[in-house]
Amino acid sequence: MDNYLIYTVGAGVIALIFAFFLSSFISKESDGNERMQEISGYIHEGAMAFLRTEYRYLTIFIIIVAAALALFVHWQTAVCFIIGAFFSILAGYFGMNVATKANVRTAEAARHSQNKALNIAFSGGSVMGMSVVGLGLIGIGLLYIIFAGDMNVITGFGLGASSIALFARVGGGIYTKAADVGADLVGKVEEGIPEDDPRNPAVIADNVGDNVGDVAGMGADLFESYVGSIISALTLGAVVFKNNEGVVYALLLSAVGIIAAIVGILVARQSKAANPQKALNSGTYISGIIVIVVAAVLSNLIFGNLKAFTAITAGLVVGMLIGKITEIYTSGDYNYVKKIARQSETGPATTIISGLAVGMHSTMWPIVLIGIGVLASFFIMDGATNVNMGLYGIALSAVGMLSITGITVAVDAYGPIADNAGGIAEMSHLPHEVRQITDKLDSVGNTTAAIGKGFAIGSAALTALALFAAYAQAVQITTIDLLNPITLVGMLVGAMLPFLFGALTMESVGKAANEMIEEVRRQFKTIPGIMEEKAKPDYKKCVDISTAAAIREMILPGVLAIVIPLAMGLLLGKEALGGFIGGAVATGVLVAILMANSGGAWDNAKKYIESGEHGGKGSFAHKAAVVGDTVGDPFKDTSGPSMNILIKLMTIVSLVFAPVILKYGGILLEIFK
Amino acid sequence: MDNYLIYTVGAGVIALIFAFFLSSFISKESDGNERMQEISGYIHEGAMAFLRTEYRYLTIFIIIVAAALALFVHWQTAVCFIIGAFFSILAGYFGMNVATKANVRTAEAARHSQNKALNIAFSGGSVMGMSVVGLGLIGIGLLYIIFAGDMNVITGFGLGASSIALFARVGGGIYTKAADVGADLVGKVEEGIPEDDPRNPAVIADNVGDNVGDVAGMGADLFESYVGSIISALTLGAVVFKNNEGVVYALLLSAVGIIAAIVGILVARQSKAANPQKALNSGTYISGIIVIVVAAVLSNLIFGNLKAFTAITAGLVVGMLIGKITEIYTSGDYNYVKKIARQSETGPATTIISGLAVGMHSTMWPIVLIGIGVLASFFIMDGATNVNMGLYGIALSAVGMLSITGITVAVDAYGPIADNAGGIAEMSHLPHEVRQITDKLDSVGNTTAAIGKGFAIGSAALTALALFAAYAQAVQITTIDLLNPITLVGMLVGAMLPFLFGALTMESVGKAANEMIEEVRRQFKTIPGIMEEKAKPDYKKCVDISTAAAIREMILPGVLAIVIPLAMGLLLGKEALGGFIGGAVATGVLVAILMANSGGAWDNAKKYIESGEHGGKGSFAHKAAVVGDTVGDPFKDTSGPSMNILIKLMTIVSLVFAPVILKYGGILLEIFK
Repeated sequence: MDNYLIYTVGAGVIALIFAFFLSSFISKESDGNERMQEISGYIHEGAMAFLRTEYRYLTIFIIIVAAALALFVHWQTAVCFIIGAFFSILAGYFGMNVATKANVRTAEAARHSQNKALNIAFSGGSVMGMSVVGLGLIGIGLLYIIFAGDMNVITGFGLGASSIALFARVGGGIYTKAADVGADLVGKVEEGIPEDDPRNPAVIADNVGDNVGDVAGMGADLFESYVGSIISALTLGAVVFKNNEGVVYALLLSAVGIIAAIVGILVARQSKAANPQKALNSGTYISGIIVIVVAAVLSNLIFGNLKAFTAITAGLVVGMLIGKITEIYTSGDYNYVKKIARQSETGPATTIISGLAVGMHSTMWPIVLIGIGVLASFFIMDGATNVNMGLYGIALSAVGMLSITGITVAVDAYGPIADNAGGIAEMSHLPHEVRQITDKLDSVGNTTAAIGKGFAIGSAALTALALFAAYAQAVQITTIDLLNPITLVGMLVGAMLPFLFGALTMESVGKAANEMIEEVRRQFKTIPGIMEEKAKPDYKKCVDISTAAAIREMILPGVLAIVIPLAMGLLLGKEALGGFIGGAVATGVLVAILMANSGGAWDNAKKYIESGEHGGKGSFAHKAAVVGDTVGDPFKDTSGPSMNILIKLMTIVSLVFAPVILKYGGILLEIFK
Repeated sequence: MDNYLIYTVGAGVIALIFAFFLSSFISKESDGNERMQEISGYIHEGAMAFLRTEYRYLTIFIIIVAAALALFVHWQTAVCFIIGAFFSILAGYFGMNVATKANVRTAEAARHSQNKALNIAFSGGSVMGMSVVGLGLIGIGLLYIIFAGDMNVITGFGLGASSIALFARVGGGIYTKAADVGADLVGKVEEGIPEDDPRNPAVIADNVGDNVGDVAGMGADLFESYVGSIISALTLGAVVFKNNEGVVYALLLSAVGIIAAIVGILVARQSKAANPQKALNSGTYISGIIVIVVAAVLSNLIFGNLKAFTAITAGLVVGMLIGKITEIYTSGDYNYVKKIARQSETGPATTIISGLAVGMHSTMWPIVLIGIGVLASFFIMDGATNVNMGLYGIALSAVGMLSITGITVAVDAYGPIADNAGGIAEMSHLPHEVRQITDKLDSVGNTTAAIGKGFAIGSAALTALALFAAYAQAVQITTIDLLNPITLVGMLVGAMLPFLFGALTMESVGKAANEMIEEVRRQFKTIPGIMEEKAKPDYKKCVDISTAAAIREMILPGVLAIVIPLAMGLLLGKEALGGFIGGAVATGVLVAILMANSGGAWDNAKKYIESGEHGGKGSFAHKAAVVGDTVGDPFKDTSGPSMNILIKLMTIVSLVFAPVILKYGGILLEIFK
C-alpha cells in the first residue's frame, strides 16, 4: 500500500482519537444540579429519540436505493453507498451525543467563568467537526484501497453521504422550526411567558430542535460537501495525470487539513481573549494559514510548480471572503441590517420588503467571487490548453475551501450548544449572570453560524460544479449545449426545481408548526396549574409531534430530489440532464444565499431593535421585526440550507446513475422524433 | 413591392384606423358633471405630465445609444433603433391619452348601465391594444421594405422598443407603487379615511399610477414582446428558407392576428352577457380560433404541410394554459388563495410564508409548459434533422402566442380604466350603485390582469429563447457549452442578475414610497381644514414626487440592463455572454412568475377575507392579509413585470451589439490566459 493512503487514513484516525479525547474531557466536567441534569436529560433523550426514528426510516430508504444500485449499476457501488450513508449517520450520532452532553456542562461552567464555558461548548462542537472529517477521510481512503482507486464505484460513498444529508437537513430543519414557531407563537405571544420558560410545553422540543437542525443537520451537510469535493478531485485527478499525482495531492492536502484543524482547535481553546469571537477566529485563521503553507510545499514537491497551490488558495480565500460578505449583509454592525430595522418603523410589510431586497442584493458578490474562483483555478491549471486539467483545478479549489472543514464545523456546532446552555440556565433558574454569559456566547454563535452558512453555500457551489464536470465525463458528452433545445429545456426545469423545493419545505414547516401550536394551546388549556409551575407540561408529546412531523415531511422532498434527475435523464436524455444540473446549481445557489441572508438579516434586525434602537423591545418597530424574524426562520434554517444539499445530491445522483442514463436515457425523445 | 408586405403594413394601418374610430367613439360620450371633469382632468394632466417628463429623459438616452450604434454597429441600425423607440413612445402616448379620457366616461356611463360602462372601458383598452399591434407591424413592415429585409439592421427596431419598455415598466411601476403605498399607509391606516377619498393628497397620484403602470407600462412591455417575437421569426426564417416562405408566413400570420383581434373586440363589445368576464373571454377565444384556422390554411398554402400551423397552435395553447394556471394560483375561487387567507389567522408572518410558498410552487407548471411548447415546436419543424428550422419553429410558437396581442392588451388595459372610473365615482360622490358597477368591472379586471401577466411572462420566455438563438447565429457560435467554465461563469452571473434587479427595484419603491408618506403626512398636518373638505390638498405636489422619484429610480436599473451584458461580452467574450443570457432568461422567468403570482395571490387573499371570511374586514386575519398585499404590491406591479423586459432587453442588446462583441469581446480572457 502506498504511503499517501496510510497518511490519509491515519489523519482520519487521528481526528477520531482527538474527538474521543475531547469527548471524555467534556464527560468529566460537572453536569450541574439535579434540575439541570433532569432538563438536559430530556433534551438528550429527545434528540437521540429523533435520530433513532429518523435512522429507522432511512434504513428502508438505504435498502431500496442500494438494491437499485446493485441491480442497475454495480454491487460495489451499492456497498460504497451503504458505507457512505452509515458513516454520515455515525458522524451525526457521535456529534449529537456529545453536543447534548456539552450543553448542560457549558451552563454549569458559566457559573464560574466565561472562558471555561466557551472551552466546553467549543470542545463539544469540535467533536462534531472531527467526526465529520475523520469519518469522511477514513471512508474515502479505505474504499480507495479496497476498490483499487475505481472512482466509478467510490462515488457511491458520496451518494450515501448526500442522501442522508438531505434527509437530515430537511427533517432537522422542519423539526427545529416547528418547535420554535410553536413555542414562540403560543408561549411568548399568546401566554406572554419568556423564552425558554419551563412552563412552555414546547420548550424541550425547541432545545432539541437546535441540536437536530443546527448540529446534526449542519454536520451532515458539510460531511457531504467535504466528501463530494474530495471525490470530484480524485475522479478528475485520475483522468488527468499519468502517475496519480492528482489523487496524491488531493488526499494529502485533506490529511493536512485535518491536522491544521486540530492545531486551530487547540489554539482557540487555549485563547484567553475576552471576546469569544476573537478566540474562534484565531483558530480558523491559523488552520487556514497552515493549509496554505503546506499546500505550497506539497504543490512544489508533487507537481514541481505552484499552480495547484494557487487553486487551493483561491478556494480558501473565496470561501473566507464569502463568509465576510455574509457577515456584512447579516450582522447588526453594518448598514443592511440597520436599514431593515429602520424600515420596521413603518410596519411589517416594509420589514419584509427590505429584508427580501437585502437577501436578493446579497447574491451579487458571492456569485462574482465564485465566478472568479472558478476561472482562476481553471486557468491557473492550464485549462486553456487542457480542459480536464482546468476542471481538476476547480475541484482543487473546492478541496481547498473545505480543507479546514474540521474547524468550520466545530465553530458552527458551538453555537447551538451555547444556545442550549442558555435554555438550560433559564429553565433551571440559574442566576442572571449565568444567562448573560451564555447569551454572549450565543450571540457570537449567531454570527459564526451566518458565516458558516456562507461557507457551506460557496463550497456546495464549487463541489457541485466539479461533480458536474465529472458527470459529463461519465456519460461521455463533451458539450452541454444551451443552443440544443433539449438541453435548454433541461436547464429551465432544473432552474425551477429549487423554487419547487423551497415551496414544499416552507409548506411543511407551516404544517408542522400548526400541529405544534394546537398541541401547546391544548396543554395550556387542559393541564391545571401549568402556569403556576404546579403541574408539569407534557414535554414528550411536543417532542413526539416534532419528530413525527419532521419524519413525515422530509420524505416527499427527499424522494423528489433523487427521482426527478433520474426521470429527466431517462425521459429527455443525458444532455437534458446536464442542462438540468447546470440550471439547478445556478438557482439553487442563488435561492440558498437569498434565504440564508434574508433570514439572518431579519434575525439580527430584531436583535438590533431589542438592543434599544427604534423604541426597543415591545415597540411597534419591534413587533414588525418579529414578523420578519418569523418569516426568516424557515428561510435560514430549513429551506435555504436544504438547497445546498439538493444541488449536490442531484448532481451526484446523476453521476452515480450515469451508466443507467447512458444506456436507457432519452425515452421521450424517441416520441418527439 | 411584394403583396405580403402590403398586407402586413395594411393590417397595421387598419389597426390604427380602428383605434381612431374607437377613440372618437369614446370622446363623443358624456364626461359627466363638473366635479368629475375636474378630477379626471387632474388625472389626465398628471399622467401626461409624467409621460412628457419621462420622454424628455428618454430622449437623452436615445441619442446616446443611437450615437453608439451609429459609431460601433451601423447607422441604419441606429435609425431603426430610433424609430422603434419612437413608435413605442407613440403607442404609450396614444393609449394613455385615450385611457385617461375613457375612465371618467366609464364612471358616467355606469350611472346608466353596466354594459355601456363595460363597453367604454373596454374600448379605451382596445385603443391601447390596437396602437401596440398597429404601430408594431407598420414599423417592422416599413423597415423591412426600406432596408430590403436586412434583419441585422431591423433588430435595432426591437432594441428601441425594448429599452423604452424597460424604462416605462420600471418607472411606471415605481410611480404607481409609491403613490399607492403612500396613499394607503397614511390615508387608510393612519387617518382612517377610505380608499379613493378626495381628502387624501396622494389620491390623484394613485389614480395616475394605475395609468402609467398598468396601461403605459404594460403596453410598452407587450409592444416589445410582439415586435421581438416577429423579429426573431424573421431573422431565423430568412436563414432557413430559400424562397422567403418563413418571412412571408410570420408576417401574414401577424397581419391575420390583427384582424382576428379586431373581430374579437367587436364581438366582446356587442356581447350582452351579464358577466363582464364572459364578454371579454368570448372575444379572446374568437380571436384565437380565427388565428388557428387561418394559420392552418396559410401553413398549407405556403409550406404545403401543417407543421408551421402546429407550432403556432402550440404557442397559443401554451399561452392560454399559462393564463389559466395563473388564475388557479391567484384567484380567490381556488385553494391556494384560500390557504393564504386561512394562514392569515396566525398573523402576518404565516401570511407571508404561505404566499411565498404559493408563488414558488406556481413556477412549476408554466416552466413545464414552456418546455413542452419549445420541444414540440422545435421537433415538429424537423429540428432533429435541421436545427435552424427547429429554432424557427420556436420563434413561430412565440409569434402564435403573441398573434392576438391586440385583444390581450385591450383586456389588460381595460382593468385600470375601470379601476380609475371607480376612483372618480368615489371622489365625485356619485351614488353607491355606480361604485358597485365599477367595482364589479374592476374585479374582473384583476383576474384578467393576472392572466395577462402570465401571458406576458410566457411570451417573454419564448421570445427571449428565440432571440437567444438569433444571437448565437449573429456571433457565429454553434454551441453555448456549460462545460466551458467561461460559459458556466457567464450563466451564474446571468442567473444572478434578476435577483440584483429585483433588489434594486424593490429598494426604489421603498425609497419613493417613503418620500410620498412624508409628504402626505405633512399635508395632513399643515393644511388646515383638509379633513373637513374645507381646504383642498395639494394633489400636484404628490404627483410631482411620484414623477420625480420614478424618473430618478428608473435610471440605474435601466442602464445596468444595457451595460452589464455588454460588459460581460467585452470582458469574458461571446460564449460567456451566451451563458449569461441563458442564465438570465431562466431565473428571470422564474422570479417573474414567483413575484407576479405571490403578489396576485396576496391581493386576492385579502379580498377573499374582505368578502366576509375569517372574520372579514378589520379582523386580525384581515390585518395580516393587508401586510401580505402590501408586500405583494412591488412584487406584482414593479419588480416582477420588469423581469420580462429585462431578459428580452438583455438578449436583444446582445443581438444588436453582436458585431462589437465579435470584434472586441473577451478582453479579460487574454489576461487569464
